[in-house]
Parts: sequence; structure tokens; C-alpha cells
Amino acid sequence: MVTGFGSVEALVFDMFGTVVDWRTNVAAEVASLLGGYVPSFDAYEFADAWRAEYQPSMERVRKGDRPFVRLDVLHRENLDSVLEQFGTDPTSIPEHVLAEVNLAWHRLDPWPDAVAGLTRLKARFIIAPLSNANVRLALDVAKRAELPWDAVLGAEVAGAYKPDPAAYLRTVDILGLEPHQIAMVAAHNSDLAAAQALGLRTVFVRRPTEHGPDQTTDLAAEGEWDVVAEDFEDLADRIG
Amino acid sequence: MVTGFGSVEALVFDMFGTVVDWRTNVAAEVASLLGGYVPSFDAYEFADAWRAEYQPSMERVRKGDRPFVRLDVLHRENLDSVLEQFGTDPTSIPEHVLAEVNLAWHRLDPWPDAVAGLTRLKARFIIAPLSNANVRLALDVAKRAELPWDAVLGAEVAGAYKPDPAAYLRTVDILGLEPHQIAMVAAHNSDLAAAQALGLRTVFVRRPTEHGPDQTTDLAAEGEWDVVAEDFEDLADRIG
Repeated sequence: MVTGFGSVEALVFDMFGTVVDWRTNVAAEVASLLGGYVPSFDAYEFADAWRAEYQPSMERVRKGDRPFVRLDVLHRENLDSVLEQFGTDPTSIPEHVLAEVNLAWHRLDPWPDAVAGLTRLKARFIIAPLSNANVRLALDVAKRAELPWDAVLGAEVAGAYKPDPAAYLRTVDILGLEPHQIAMVAAHNSDLAAAQALGLRTVFVRRPTEHGPDQTTDLAAEGEWDVVAEDFEDLADRIG
Repeated sequence: MVTGFGSVEALVFDMFGTVVDWRTNVAAEVASLLGGYVPSFDAYEFADAWRAEYQPSMERVRKGDRPFVRLDVLHRENLDSVLEQFGTDPTSIPEHVLAEVNLAWHRLDPWPDAVAGLTRLKARFIIAPLSNANVRLALDVAKRAELPWDAVLGAEVAGAYKPDPAAYLRTVDILGLEPHQIAMVAAHNSDLAAAQALGLRTVFVRRPTEHGPDQTTDLAAEGEWDVVAEDFEDLADRIG
């Protein structure tokens, strides 16, 4: 057992990039569904551009410029922006096609170690996503991939997007625990820094191809995290 | 397939009495934990008296006389009242004992058909509790009993207690569905009446011993419910 981890009762997980491989799946769905509507394009570039709109769109909510809306709504708005960046008028594409493209985020595959690792970790800890995904998105991903969550928590339940402190602290409160009894598991140093500042324990899991083969960020732990693991099986070996 | 049930994508479940047998479990825990503190008493009477405080305590929240607080808080307050009804000053009992008694509600056993029935229903539907239990209570019950929920919804996530319409409608919204795409499953006619008035489908499951061998209420369907089932296995036979 890792020092200081003995009081931890719950593990909460970032989802996009940490549990699931969004880039590969979104690119594949975009290529399949938009191929007939958008002139020749690189589906990975499209997926990256869509993801690049993610933080700015949540920032408007975090800053109070608009009320909380679930991620499905932001994804749909951002899809229009990205289509315009790729030279396509979104109104030229039938709405049911765009709605289906937006559901690509509900059909993400987990990293190969995720289900086996989570199943082992569940025997010892409460496990739940603390993701910016809305409940239905996280639920659909989990049901399709058979992720064995004990509950689906995160931005929609908290009414706030990470790294807003409210997203973490309301989740802590709902779990009926103290911050030091919960560990945030993420492949992103910034997520862990926000959690650590509030007293949560931290677990960094390396996902060096989240952004593709040329990834330059989050390749290594950049803070004093409680645990650093190669994947969820390695994490279960260390703390399970 | 039952007529009109073809559009249903999610089943949401009342928990106390419908999924789990609260009376037997709470009585056993009360007998074990309070036997040394309360003069000779009937543990079933104590459990019934505790449960009798349930609706009045939620009604104060529903009427706006106090802000929403989770059920764990109401249970703990109500425990004090019941101890007084049984002639015992709650301050004469150590707080850690009362806290443990309060957790009896987190350790309820499911009815014998519940896990098998839910597992079958999960193959076809999204399944989640829509209970007045708070998230941690429902989570603890599910983890201990291995109830295979896809998510934990209900009063705390909705910020409202059934039968307040907000408890149902916010759950519908979170699931991203229309009311007619969701069926409320309950052993209580009043719960189904509230859900039906909002457009949800309804499933009545008979639990004729929820209140013990002399139960007089909810022994039969009292409304035009879409499905009436003997238990969750029977329900899976009918709609699974």
C-alpha cells in the first residue's frame, strides 16, 4: 500500500483520455458519418479541432458568462464551429446526421486495461467517474463498454465543470467523505493539481497516446502525486 | 412486449420496499445496536415508527419549509424523535452508536428476485434507482448487494423528493429522454400515480410483505398501470 493512501475509500476518475480513448473513436465516427458532407479532410485533425473547443466552451460556464449546460450541448455547438473551420456550412448537413455525429462521444472505447483494472479496484474502493461528461454520456459509454462504476458523478451532478473547485467539492460532499478519503485519478496534471489543492489524494496514469503518436503534453507526472501508474492494472497492483 | 412499452428506453426504480426489504433489515440492526440502550422494545415496531417519520420529514422539504437536505440527515433527525417515542433520551446514547444505527439504511438487503431480475432487465434497458435515498445510501446498498445499476439517480441528484414533480422531471431530463420513454417501477401506487401524471410509463410490482405479514396497503394495483408484475423476474419475463 502506498504511504498515506490507507484512508482512501473512493477513487474518482477523469474520463476523456484517462478511461477512454476519445481521439481514435471520434475520428473514426467523423470519417464515417461526415465523409459525404465535408470535402476531403483528415478525421484526426477534425477530432483534435473539436476537442480544442472543449475547454474554451466550458470556460464560459466556469466564468459565469452562461448558466451551466451539459456537455452534450457544448459538443453540439462546438461541432458547428469546427465544421465552419473545415469550410462546411453546418446548416447544409441534416440535423439528424449532426445529432448522430455528436453521439460519437457516447460511444468511446475504453483503453485496453480499463475494465479489468476498474473491476479489481472496485473490490476495494468506491469507483465513479468525476468527469466533465454529462450523466447520459458517461452512462452510455459505461453501458457499452461495461465499465463497472458504483455511481455516475461529475459535472452535471455537481453543476460545475472541472477545474472549478465546486466540481470536486460537491462530489466529495455527495460521497459523504472528507477530501483526503478520495483520490482523483487522471492522465492530466492540471486536473490533479486542482484536486490536490482541495485536499484530495492524486493518482497520475500515463496515457501517452491520448493525443496521438506525437503527443507532447502530460507524458509524465509534473507534480507530487500520491501514486503514478502505467495503467489501471498497474494501479490495481499498487493500491488494490 | 406489453402494448405501448416499445418506446421505453429506461426503467427507474423506487428503492425502499420495491428493490430492498427495509423493515426486516432495519429491525435486525436496531435490535442488535440499540438493545443495550433502549429498555425492552419490539424492533419491528421501532423500524415502523422510524419509517413513519419518513414522509413528514420530506414533506417539510417539499413544502419549502427547509432547504433540501439528503435523506441521511432526515433519518438521523428522525431517529432522535423515535428514541424519544420509545422513552429514551437520544443524548444518553453515544453519537457513534447512533451514527452506526443510521447506517442501517445503507445495509439493506434486496428482495430475493431483485439482482437476477435487474441483471436481465439491464440487457435491454437503462436501469437506475429513482429513489428518495441520497446517492451514498443508494450506492452503499448497491455495492453491498451487487445491484447492477447503470447510474444512481434520485432525490439528491434532482434536488427534490418524490412525489414532487421535479424529482421525476429532472431525472427524465438528465437521462436525455422524453417522459414516455421512461417507466417508473414501484411497489407503491402513489409513486406511480405521480409519475403517470407527468407522462412516464408505470410498472407496479407487488411487495406484499414490505410492511410485514399484516400489510394492508399497496397489496394490488390501484391504477391503470402499464405493467403489473409479481417480482423483477416476472417483470423481465414480461418486458425483457
